[in-house]
Amino acid sequence: MPDSALQGTSAVAPAREDGESAVIRSESFVSRQLDRLRRTWARIAGIAASDDAQPAGMTRRQLKDLESQMHACVAQAGGEVSARLQAAALGQTYLGLNAAGKREFLELIARFGPDQRVLGAAARGLLDARDDAARLEHERALREAIRAPRVKILTQFTGLPEGVKFLVDLRADLLRAARENPALDVLERELSGLLALWFDVGFLELQSITWDSPASLLERLIAYEAVHEIRSWDDLRNRLDSDRRCYAFFHPRMPREPLIFVEVALSKGLAASIQRLLDKNQPAADLRRADTAIFYSISSTQPGLRGISFGNFLIKRVVDELKRDFPALRHFATLSPIPGFAHWLQSAAAGAIMLPASMRSKLKKAGMEPTNARELWSALSGRDWSREPKLAQALEEPMLLACAHYLAETRKGLRPIDPVARFHLDNGARIERLNWLADTSDNGMKQSAGIMVNYVYDPGDIERNHEAYRLHGKVALSSELRRLLRR
Amino acid sequence: MPDSALQGTSAVAPAREDGESAVIRSESFVSRQLDRLRRTWARIAGIAASDDAQPAGMTRRQLKDLESQMHACVAQAGGEVSARLQAAALGQTYLGLNAAGKREFLELIARFGPDQRVLGAAARGLLDARDDAARLEHERALREAIRAPRVKILTQFTGLPEGVKFLVDLRADLLRAARENPALDVLERELSGLLALWFDVGFLELQSITWDSPASLLERLIAYEAVHEIRSWDDLRNRLDSDRRCYAFFHPRMPREPLIFVEVALSKGLAASIQRLLDKNQPAADLRRADTAIFYSISSTQPGLRGISFGNFLIKRVVDELKRDFPALRHFATLSPIPGFAHWLQSAAAGAIMLPASMRSKLKKAGMEPTNARELWSALSGRDWSREPKLAQALEEPMLLACAHYLAETRKGLRPIDPVARFHLDNGARIERLNWLADTSDNGMKQSAGIMVNYVYDPGDIERNHEAYRLHGKVALSSELRRLLRR
Amino acid sequence: MPDSALQGTSAVAPAREDGESAVIRSESFVSRQLDRLRRTWARIAGIAASDDAQPAGMTRRQLKDLESQMHACVAQAGGEVSARLQAAALGQTYLGLNAAGKREFLELIARFGPDQRVLGAAARGLLDARDDAARLEHERALREAIRAPRVKILTQFTGLPEGVKFLVDLRADLLRAARENPALDVLERELSGLLALWFDVGFLELQSITWDSPASLLERLIAYEAVHEIRSWDDLRNRLDSDRRCYAFFHPRMPREPLIFVEVALSKGLAASIQRLLDKNQPAADLRRADTAIFYSISSTQPGLRGISFGNFLIKRVVDELKRDFPALRHFATLSPIPGFAHWLQSAAAGAIMLPASMRSKLKKAGMEPTNARELWSALSGRDWSREPKLAQALEEPMLLACAHYLAETRKGLRPIDPVARFHLDNGARIERLNWLADTSDNGMKQSAGIMVNYVYDPGDIERNHEAYRLHGKVALSSELRRLLRR
Amino acid sequence: MPDSALQGTSAVAPAREDGESAVIRSESFVSRQLDRLRRTWARIAGIAASDDAQPAGMTRRQLKDLESQMHACVAQAGGEVSARLQAAALGQTYLGLNAAGKREFLELIARFGPDQRVLGAAARGLLDARDDAARLEHERALREAIRAPRVKILTQFTGLPEGVKFLVDLRADLLRAARENPALDVLERELSGLLALWFDVGFLELQSITWDSPASLLERLIAYEAVHEIRSWDDLRNRLDSDRRCYAFFHPRMPREPLIFVEVALSKGLAASIQRLLDKNQPAADLRRADTAIFYSISSTQPGLRGISFGNFLIKRVVDELKRDFPALRHFATLSPIPGFAHWLQSAAAGAIMLPASMRSKLKKAGMEPTNARELWSALSGRDWSREPKLAQALEEPMLLACAHYLAETRKGLRPIDPVARFHLDNGARIERLNWLADTSDNGMKQSAGIMVNYVYDPGDIERNHEAYRLHGKVALSSELRRLLRR
Repeated sequence: MPDSALQGTSAVAPAREDGESAVIRSESFVSRQLDRLRRTWARIAGIAASDDAQPAGMTRRQLKDLESQMHACVAQAGGEVSARLQAAALGQTYLGLNAAGKREFLELIARFGPDQRVLGAAARGLLDARDDAARLEHERALREAIRAPRVKILTQFTGLPEGVKFLVDLRADLLRAARENPALDVLERELSGLLALWFDVGFLELQSITWDSPASLLERLIAYEAVHEIRSWDDLRNRLDSDRRCYAFFHPRMPREPLIFVEVALSKGLAASIQRLLDKNQPAADLRRADTAIFYSISSTQPGLRGISFGNFLIKRVVDELKRDFPALRHFATLSPIPGFAHWLQSAAAGAIMLPASMRSKLKKAGMEPTNARELWSALSGRDWSREPKLAQALEEPMLLACAHYLAETRKGLRPIDPVARFHLDNGARIERLNWLADTSDNGMKQSAGIMVNYVYDPGDIERNHEAYRLHGKVALSSELRRLLRR
Repeated sequence: MPDSALQGTSAVAPAREDGESAVIRSESFVSRQLDRLRRTWARIAGIAASDDAQPAGMTRRQLKDLESQMHACVAQAGGEVSARLQAAALGQTYLGLNAAGKREFLELIARFGPDQRVLGAAARGLLDARDDAARLEHERALREAIRAPRVKILTQFTGLPEGVKFLVDLRADLLRAARENPALDVLERELSGLLALWFDVGFLELQSITWDSPASLLERLIAYEAVHEIRSWDDLRNRLDSDRRCYAFFHPRMPREPLIFVEVALSKGLAASIQRLLDKNQPAADLRRADTAIFYSISSTQPGLRGISFGNFLIKRVVDELKRDFPALRHFATLSPIPGFAHWLQSAAAGAIMLPASMRSKLKKAGMEPTNARELWSALSGRDWSREPKLAQALEEPMLLACAHYLAETRKGLRPIDPVARFHLDNGARIERLNWLADTSDNGMKQSAGIMVNYVYDPGDIERNHEAYRLHGKVALSSELRRLLRR
Repeated sequence: MPDSALQGTSAVAPAREDGESAVIRSESFVSRQLDRLRRTWARIAGIAASDDAQPAGMTRRQLKDLESQMHACVAQAGGEVSARLQAAALGQTYLGLNAAGKREFLELIARFGPDQRVLGAAARGLLDARDDAARLEHERALREAIRAPRVKILTQFTGLPEGVKFLVDLRADLLRAARENPALDVLERELSGLLALWFDVGFLELQSITWDSPASLLERLIAYEAVHEIRSWDDLRNRLDSDRRCYAFFHPRMPREPLIFVEVALSKGLAASIQRLLDKNQPAADLRRADTAIFYSISSTQPGLRGISFGNFLIKRVVDELKRDFPALRHFATLSPIPGFAHWLQSAAAGAIMLPASMRSKLKKAGMEPTNARELWSALSGRDWSREPKLAQALEEPMLLACAHYLAETRKGLRPIDPVARFHLDNGARIERLNWLADTSDNGMKQSAGIMVNYVYDPGDIERNHEAYRLHGKVALSSELRRLLRR
Repeated sequence: MPDSALQGTSAVAPAREDGESAVIRSESFVSRQLDRLRRTWARIAGIAASDDAQPAGMTRRQLKDLESQMHACVAQAGGEVSARLQAAALGQTYLGLNAAGKREFLELIARFGPDQRVLGAAARGLLDARDDAARLEHERALREAIRAPRVKILTQFTGLPEGVKFLVDLRADLLRAARENPALDVLERELSGLLALWFDVGFLELQSITWDSPASLLERLIAYEAVHEIRSWDDLRNRLDSDRRCYAFFHPRMPREPLIFVEVALSKGLAASIQRLLDKNQPAADLRRADTAIFYSISSTQPGLRGISFGNFLIKRVVDELKRDFPALRHFATLSPIPGFAHWLQSAAAGAIMLPASMRSKLKKAGMEPTNARELWSALSGRDWSREPKLAQALEEPMLLACAHYLAETRKGLRPIDPVARFHLDNGARIERLNWLADTSDNGMKQSAGIMVNYVYDPGDIERNHEAYRLHGKVALSSELRRLLRR
C-alpha cells in the first residue's frame, strides 16, 4: 500500500502529537482517560496503582522484573486467569511510565524475536527440499518459526477492557520510539499488521453525531478536532446546529472513540470562507433551500492508526447518507486547507512557474517585480498583505495560478504532493475551485497564503475518479481549474 | 493450542455437519440464508444470480475464468470499486457451487502460494547473514516473502455484507475438503489464523436471549440447538419461560448469529432428569424459591470456528450474570451428556474395571455374570433394560462406577477423553454427581447408558480449578465422586 | 365523534370478540397473558393467586368483601402503599372472574356515583346565582360534585404493571356487559373519556415491524390478524419477506402491544387477487422494479378501544414512511374487503338497482332472468357459481355495477354504509377499482360475492379528500368508477 | 390533594420562575428552545415566524383575529388537516407574545366556557327528576353540559411536536396570570386536570443519567439544577464521576426533559458538609468501601407541573435502583437544606423556644444574653459569626435545638411547615441528624444559619413511615433527634 489513504487523512487532520496549543488543551482529557484506565487495570491485576507516573527511565531491577514477567507471558505456562492478571499488571506498568520508560519497555518486548536456531533450520530445510511435498512441509515449518513470541505479548491485552485502544496508543508510542531506535521497526510492523486486520474496513461503522449524542463522545470531538479548533461546548453545539451535520467512523471495540470524523454545513451554494462558516452569530441556514453540503473539517483522531487504511469511500458513504436524508441536496464539496502550499512556494519547482506579463504588470503597479512564483512569495515575506486591499487584489491571480500548479501538477511519483489533495482525490473527488482570502487566520495565511480549495464529490463520478486516480494517477479537475492551468 | 476449549465445546454441541435429522431440519433455514446472500452479492457485482445452484463440478472453461479473476484480485491492479465487484462476483459464484465445485474453487485459491524464488532467496540471505543487522534485514524479507497472495483473496470478502460469516462458512467447507486433499491444509491454517485474530475473546459479547429477542435470532436457536432438539416455536417459548434463561456470545460483525449458547433452568435443587426438565407440561418453577441454575444445553453453532478458542470462562461470565440478577442463587451446575461413555465401554480399558463382589452378586440375581465393566456392557447389548426395573436397579451401581472411572480417570495425555468433561473442567467446573436413568431417550440410552452428569461451577473455585487443570491436568471431584472411585 | 375512525377500522379488522375460529386460535395466547398478569398482581398484593378462574358468579359474601375494598379505595384513607396493594388485590380478583362475575364486579363499581345531595345543592346554587362571580363559583362546585368516586377505582390501576392494558380490556368487558345492563353505560362513558385522553393521537408511535422484531410482539400479530388469518410462523415470515412491509401504532404504556397494524406488499402494479398475494410459493417481487405499495390487511387489535379515535392519517403516515424508504414508489393502494355488500344485496335498496338491457341479455344466456340486483343475488343463492366460468363472466358486469352503487352511493346520513369504505375515505383515499373474483375464499364469496376493492392513497390528494369527506361527505372516485356509475 | 408531594419538591428545588441569577443563567437555554419550537410550528402552519417576539400587548384587531381562530377551533368544522394547521398557528402566535399578550390570549380562551342556557336546563332537569332512571339521564346531560369548549382549544396542541411540553409551560404562565386575574382560575383547573391524567405516576420512567447521556439532556440539568448551581460542563462531569450517580424521571412525551432529578454521592459514612461534597478537587471515593448514598440535590424542573403529584416513592425507586447496583450500600440519606428555618426564627413560635440554663451560660461567655431562640437570632443579625469560632461553638447547641423544634414540631395542620421536610417525610424518610456549619455559603447562612439536615431512607421503614405520616402526620425521628427534643 505505497500511498495509503490515511497518510492523506492524517495530513488533513494531523493527529495531535506535536506540541501545539491544541495538544495542551486536550492534554487533560487524554491524561484523565489514561489515568482511569491505569486504575482499572491495576484493580484487575490486584495491585495498587501508584498515584503518579514514573518520573524517569526504569531501574535495572525494574527492567529485570519486567523481563521475567514477559517471559512468563510468552511461556503461557498457567491458565487464563494468570494470563489476564499478567497482562493487566504489564499494561498498568506501561501506562505509568514516561516516554523514556516506555521506550525501554518496548525495546524489551522487541527482544522476544523468533528462535534463530529453529528459524535457520527451517530455512535450510526449505532450500534443501527435493519435491513439492517436502517444500510444502518446510514452508509450513518456516511459517511457524518466523512467528515471533513477542506477538503474544501484544495480543494478550485485547481481552482487557479498552485493550484495543491501548494497543492503538502503544503503536503511536512505537512509531515515535522507532524514529530513534530502528530495532523497534520490526515490532512496529508486526503490531501494524495486527491492527490492519482488526481495523479492516468491514469492521467500521458510520454514525451520525448530534447534540443528542453522549457527552462522553462529544468531549472527544472537542479534544480531537485538528483542523479548526472547537473552543467550547457552545462552539460545539453551534457545529451541531440544525443546518450542520457530523459523521464519524467507529470500531466496535472502541465504541465512544471516533476514528475519523467529518463536519458538514448545509447551505445554498459553495462556501468560500471558513471564518464565515464558523461564525456563531450567523443564523442557521434554511434547510429547505439548501442544495449543497460543505465538508469543512475532516479529522482523523488516532496517531496509532497512522498508515492503516480504513478503505476509501468514507466520504462516499457520508454523501450517500446525506442524500438519503436530504433528497434536495445537489452538490457535495469540501472547503479544505492546502497545508503544503507555502512550503512548496520556496522550492525550485515554484521557481519554474513563470508569471504571465499581464500579472506582472499589475504586480508592478503594486510595487513588486517578481518573475516567478517563488520570487513573488519571497518578496511578500514579513508583509501583512491581507490588510492591503490593493496588493491583495494584485496577488490574487498569480497566487491562484501557482496554487493550481501545486495542487494538480506537482507530483511525487504518480501522486500529488499535497496530502489533503491525495486524500480527496483517492476518495474520488475532483478539484473544483480555489478561494482567495478564504482562511485569513494566522495559520491560514502562513500555510497557504489564505487560499482554500473546494473539492467536489459528484456522486456519479466518485467511483470513476477513484479508479482513474488509482490506476493512472489521473487528477480530476473542474473546467475552471483546467482553464486556469492552461494559462 | 493442543487441547482447545472449543474442541470440547463442539463435542458438547456437535456442529451439525453430519447427516442427521437435525441437519435436515435446519437445512431449509441454512439454504434460505445462503440463497439470500448469493442474491445480495450478485446484485453488488451487477450480475444476475442464476436461480439454481451449479449441479456439478466446474467446466474447464469456468475454472479458467475463475483463475483469471483470482489473478486480478491478487494483482490489485484497480481501485477499491473493482476490488469490491470482483469479491462479490467470486463470492456469489462460490455460493452457487455444489460440494465438488467448492473443492475445486478452494484448490484454485490454494495455488496462489508464496513466490518460491523470492522465498528461496530470502531464506538463503538469512542463512548467510553475518551480523545482527543483516539478520534482521533478511528476517524481515523472509517475513514478507512467506506471506501468500492467496490471503488477499480471502480478506477481500470482509468488506462485503456478511463477509465474515461467509469466511466462517468457507472454513467449514475447507475443513471438510482438506480431509480428502491435504494440499488444502495450508490454506486452512492461514484462514484459521485470520479467524483466530478476528474472533479473539476480547471481541465477543455476552447477551441474554429472551422471548423479546428478534425472531430472526430465535429461529437460529431452533436451527442450531444440537443437544436437545427444539421442536417448535412453542417448545422454544417454553425454554424462554419465566424460570428459564438463555445466554449467547456474539461477534460484532455477525450480530444475529449466536456463536455459542447456553440454556439455563432455575430450580430448587439439582436436576436429575433431562426429560423432566424439557417437559412443557411442568409448571414454571417459583423464582423466589430457586437456589440453583441448571445449564442443561450448550451448543456451539459454527462448524467453521472449530478449534478457534473463544477463551474460557464463557460459563463463568454467565454465572456472574445470573448472580447479579438473582442474588439468591447458590448453586450453578450442568446436566450434561456423556457422549463417549458407551463407546469406551467396549474398550480394553473398560475391561480393566473389575466389579466388586457385592455388585456381582446383585447382578447374578438379575441373571448376569460379568466380571468387569466391558463384559457387563456387552451382556446388555440388544436388551431394553431401562424397562426392566429390577435389572435397572442391579445395574445402577456398577454402571455408575464404570462411568466415574471413564470421566475422571481415563486420560489422553493430561486430559480426560470425554469431550464434554474436557470443556467443563477447562472452564473451571468440578464433577459433582452421576444421575442414573437421567436421559432415557434412545440417544441417551445408546451413548451413555442413560447416565447424565452434573458438573458444578462453584464461583469461589472456578479460577483455581481452571488453573490446576491447565497446569497439572487436575480433575476436580465432589466428595461423592471421590468416595465412589475409592471403591 | 359521530363517525369515528375506529368504528371504521374495527370493521376492517373486527376485533375478535365473537365466537369465530380466529378467536379460538388466539384464545390460548390471551389466556396465557391474563394468567401471567393475575400472578404478577397477586404477588404485588401479597396474596396467593388461586390456580383456576372463579367458575361462576360471586357469593354474597364475596360481593360484600369487594364492596368494602372499593369503599376503602374511594376513601383513600391510607397512603400510597395501601392504595397499591388494594388496587393489585382488586385487579387480580377481577382477572380471576368469569363473565358473570365480571359483570357483578362492574356493577359494584358503577354504584360509586356522585353524592346526590351535594350534586343537587350545587345545581340549585347555580340556578339561583345572581351574578357572574356567583355563577362561576357554583359552576366550579358543580364540576367538583359531578366527578364520581368510581373514577378513582378505575385510575388506581394505572400505576400497576400493564395497568393501562388492564383498563383497555376492562372496557371491552364493559361494552359487552352494558348491552345487557344499561346502568353500566355511565361507567363505560367515564372510562372511555379517560382512554380518549390517554390514547390521544399525540401519544401514538408508528413503528416498522420486521422479522427482526421481538418474537413476543410477532406472536401478537399472529393472534390479532383479523382480515386474513396468519396460519403459522412460516406464514408470518413470508408476510415480512423482502418485498413486504408491516407497520403498527403503539402506545408508550403498552410497548409490545400493536394497537392497529397494516400489512403492505410492494409490487409492480395494482394487485387484483388476495389469494395470489398470500401465496407463499410466489417468489419475492423485485424491489427495484416495484412502483406500488398494496395495503392488503389492516387490523385494529383492541376491542376495548372501540370508538376511541386514534386520529386519521394513520395511513398517511405509513405512506410517508414508505416514500422515504422507497423513493421509486408511485402508487399507494389497498386491496380491501367489502364486508357489508352481500347483506345489502338483500335489501330494498338493492332492489332499486335496475340492470341495463345488455347485462340482462347476457344473463339470460346463462339461464337467469333478474331485473334488479336484489333478484340477481337471490337467484344465485346456493349456487357455487365461481366454478361456472360462463356464469361468472355474465355476472361480472351487473355485480360490479351493484357494488359500485353500494360503496359510493349508499349512505347512512352523510357517510357510506360500508365500514371499510368509511375508514379509508375518512383517511383521505379514493375508491379506485373493483376486482372481480378477487377473494374466492368461502368467506370472500359469502360476504362480497368475491369482489374486492382497491382504495388509492394519492399523496397529493389525501388531505383534500379527507377535508371534503369530513365537511361534505364527498366520496372521491376514480374516473373508472365514475364511468361505471354513470351507466 | 391538600399537601401535595410536589409542593414539597418544588420547595426543595424551587422551579426557577423568580428573578434570580439562576434564571438569568438558564434564560438563554429556555429562550433558545422556545424560539426553535416557534419556528417549527410556524413551518407546520405554513406561515413565516416573525423574527422577534411581540413587544407588547395585542391590538384590538389581533384579538379579534385570535378570537375567530378559537371559534373555528371549538367548532371543529373542518377535518384534521385544518385542525392541525389552526393549532400550530395559534400556538406559534402564543409563543411569540410577551407576558401581557399571553395573559390576554389566556383570557380569550377562558371565555369559551359552558353554554349557560344548556347547563341551566340540565341542572333544572336533575333537580326535577322523579326516579333513578330520570336522574341518571339528567346527570349524564349535566356532565355533557359542563364540559367547556375551551378544553378543546387546549387538547388540540397535543398532536403537535412537543405539544405536551407546550401545555406544561402554558400552565406555568396560567398560574402566574391567575394571581392577577382569578377568572383564569377555572381554566387553570381544567388544564391541571388534564395534566394530572397525563402525568399519572404510571406514565413516568426512572432513568439513570451519566456522562454518556445525550448532551442535549445534560444541558438541561445545568439549566434546571436549583439547589446547588452547576457552574460549567466540568462541574457537571464531576457530579457524574465514578462515585456519583444521578437519576431522573421522564414522561414518554417529553423524552429529553427530566421532570425531577436526584444527584447522589456514594461515600463512606454520612456527609456533613455540602461544600466538601461539591469540591471538584476532592478525589473520587473508593466505591468498594462506600456504604452510604447521599442524596445531596433534588430538583423539580417544570413550574407548569406545580401541584401535580408524581406519586410518592420517587426516592424509594432510586433507593431500589442503587441497592441493585451496589449491594454493599447500607445507608440512604439526604443532605438537605432547611429553607424556612431563618424566617421562622423571627416568629412568635420561635420566641416560645426557651433556652436551657447551660446554653445560656455558654452564650453569656460569648457576650450574648438571649432567653429564647427568637432573641438569639435577632441578636446575631448582621454579624458574620461563622468566622468567629468561639461564638459559633456557643451557638451550636441552642441553634440545633431550635432547628429540631422547627423541623419536627412546628406544624400547619397535620404537616410540618418546612417544605423540604414535608417532601421527605411524605416519601417515607425519618429526620436523622442536624449538621452544624454544613452550608456556609451566603445563601446557606441566610436561610438556615448554615444548618443542614440528613433525612434517612431506611428501606425497611419507608412504607411504614409514609403510611403513618399520611394517616396521622407522624414524623419519624432518629433517637438522636428525639433526645435533643426532650431537653
